[in-house]
Parts: sequence; C-alpha cells; structure tokens
Amino acid sequence: MSVISGSIKLSTRGDADIQDITREVARLVLNSDLTDGIVTLFCPSATSALTTIEYESGCLSDLRRLFDEVVDPNRNFDHNARWGDGNGHSHVRAALLGPSLTIPFIQETLTLGTWQQIIFIDFDNRSRRRELVVQLIGD
Amino acid sequence: MSVISGSIKLSTRGDADIQDITREVARLVLNSDLTDGIVTLFCPSATSALTTIEYESGCLSDLRRLFDEVVDPNRNFDHNARWGDGNGHSHVRAALLGPSLTIPFIQETLTLGTWQQIIFIDFDNRSRRRELVVQLIGD
Amino acid sequence: MSVISGSIKLSTRGDADIQDITREVARLVLNSDLTDGIVTLFCPSATSALTTIEYESGCLSDLRRLFDEVVDPNRNFDHNARWGDGNGHSHVRAALLGPSLTIPFIQETLTLGTWQQIIFIDFDNRSRRRELVVQLIGD
Repeated sequence: MSVISGSIKLSTRGDADIQDITREVARLVLNSDLTDGIVTLFCPSATSALTTIEYESGCLSDLRRLFDEVVDPNRNFDHNARWGDGNGHSHVRAALLGPSLTIPFIQETLTLGTWQQIIFIDFDNRSRRRELVVQLIGD
Repeated sequence: MSVISGSIKLSTRGDADIQDITREVARLVLNSDLTDGIVTLFCPSATSALTTIEYESGCLSDLRRLFDEVVDPNRNFDHNARWGDGNGHSHVRAALLGPSLTIPFIQETLTLGTWQQIIFIDFDNRSRRRELVVQLIGD
Repeated sequence: MSVISGSIKLSTRGDADIQDITREVARLVLNSDLTDGIVTLFCPSATSALTTIEYESGCLSDLRRLFDEVVDPNRNFDHNARWGDGNGHSHVRAALLGPSLTIPFIQETLTLGTWQQIIFIDFDNRSRRRELVVQLIGD
C-alpha cells in the first residue's frame, strides 16, 4: 500500500466553464505503480467543484442552466454586499456541488461507466488558473 | 492494509427508484478480513447517484419531489434535443447528487447513524440493471 | 500505511447552524503520525451534512437562503405527515448535500485553498449534540 500525490493544472474561463479531466486522471493512475485503490480528487478552492456527467454539449448546457436557475447570478448576494467581488453565486454553487470526488480503480483502470466523464466546474466569475489535488491510495 | 474490490448488483425500475443498499454494504465489510477503514461506493453510470437518508416512505417521496421540482422532467433538455433519448433530466440530477460516497467503518461496523441508510437512486427513465463498485481500504 | 479513527464533538443550534471545523480536522492530522493521505469526514446522522465554503457571514447566509428556497421548511412534507416531528426539510436537505467529505493531506497539511473552510451544517429543527467521524488513512 502506498500514497501518491499528484495534481492537474487547468486554465479556465470561469462562469461555469466545465472541463473534462478524465484523461488526466486516468493517466495519473496508469503512471503510478498501483493496481487497485482509490483516487481522491480535490478542488483547493471555494468557487469550483467536481462531479461526473456524460460530457456532451447537451448535458453540459442542461447542467449550467440548472445552476443559473437555482443560484441566479443576477440576484443579490450578501457575500457581494460585504466584499464587492461579484462572485457570491460562485461560492454557493461550489458549496452545493462539493469539492471532492473519490473513484475506485481496479487493474489500473478507473471504474467509470462508458458514458461517464469526470468534470471540473469553475463557478468563479472570471478566468482562473487552477491546480487540482489528485491523490492515489492503493496497492 | 489492503484493498478489497466488490460490487452490488441491482435491478431498478428507473424514474428515481430509490433502493436501500445498507445491508449489502455492511455484509461486504463483515465478510472482508478488515477491521477499520473506509468503504468507497461508486456508481459507474451517468444517470444514477448515491447518498444517505432515513429510509422511510415519507422521506423518500419528499426527496423525489425535490428532484421533480428542481429538475422537472417535462421541460426541454438540450440533451434530449440532440440525442432523443428522453433522459436529459436524469443526467442533470445524477451530476447534482454525485456518483460517490465514502463511509468509514470501525470494528467491522459502518459508522452510520441509527436512522441513516445508504441509498442508490436510479434517475434514468427506464428500468436498468446496475452494478455498483464497492471498494474497501483498511486494516 | 495505517488507519486512525477519531471524532469531533459539536453542540449545534439546529436550523441550518453552520460550524467551521477546519481547525479541529487539521489538529487531528497534525496529532497523528501520518504525513500524507486522506481524511474522511462522515456525519452519522440523516439531518446534517458537510461541505466546504469561505467561512464569512455573507457566504453563510447566501447558502442558508439557497436551502430555504429550494427546500422551504414551511411547506408540507410527507415525512412530517407520517411522523409528526417537523424536520422533513432537514432530511431532504441533508440527503442533497451529502454526509461525507474526503480531503487529501500532504506533509501533514490539509490541501484546502486559502479561503476554503470545512463546514458542518446541522439541518435539524432543534439543537443537537453531534459527534462526527474523522478517519485518516495514510503513511
């Protein structure tokens, strides 16, 4: 058993920019000497989040619309009133979706479904450079 | 420390069918030779998800109603417009709730609360056969 | 590699009381003999949940408002009709946000962002005593 810590660097456009990170995660698993275990993905940020989805433009725009409806960026936010940075909606969206994701791998392969990709969503209101934490634990 | 990979097979009716998988997960923990550690549950699917709830019919129908309101299946979805498979709402719901759950176990026992059960929700719009990934890491 | 199980005791006011548990989690990591690994946090309760957020009063009230809107406590809940305990909204909110959170640590330090804190939210409709499970796996 061992622990291997890595990272994935991303440049995002913000405003619910959704990026498919499946290939990078799969590569980190393959490049490790581990066969079976879990990969923990973590966003070290309060305005971005992780989940899985079928990465095709219809699903992505449907997901963005959900967040536009449930957490409308054009309404008032107490965070914006206090700090004036205009990303109150980003904080609430990120807290709702969550910063971490744990995925088992077996025989060096992520246990994703055929139509299931790992996505990073940057909810911030401007372009950002991000560095996700990717940590493997296994045999 | 070791890694043990298992699975749980389910037949679901789709349409937010909710199944209590607590007993199966507890059995996989008991049948392993591990005493303390974590169990990672993962849905290898883009239209199903996992969480915990008190498994009684009131809570289950309240949770289903939340998803009917927040992600109404009868509205238009870009996924459906592109692919014609009618399960656009299933994808958005599954992405929102999330595909993974990690639960510690101590002395061979899941650390669930008294009224807390592990549930699998199949958001797809038809009956499906599913196989959840259950991976234990511990001592 | 080893597994270390701990806990964090909390007294909450209920009604979406949000508590910052970052310092307690960081201390459990520092007090262990582990350098790199993951910490799994788990709520053994069906009416509370975990996520991360920037812990300042604006973000916290924005998050509480989201839950008041999406899961309004003043409407009817089937759980309340059956059991009469008035916390139907608490169950739905906790199931939506989720009971577990997994965070990597590297060189004895949680990989949180600068403005990112770990929060416990008690959605129950009364004050409660809680004991969160905190389990570390690592080297």
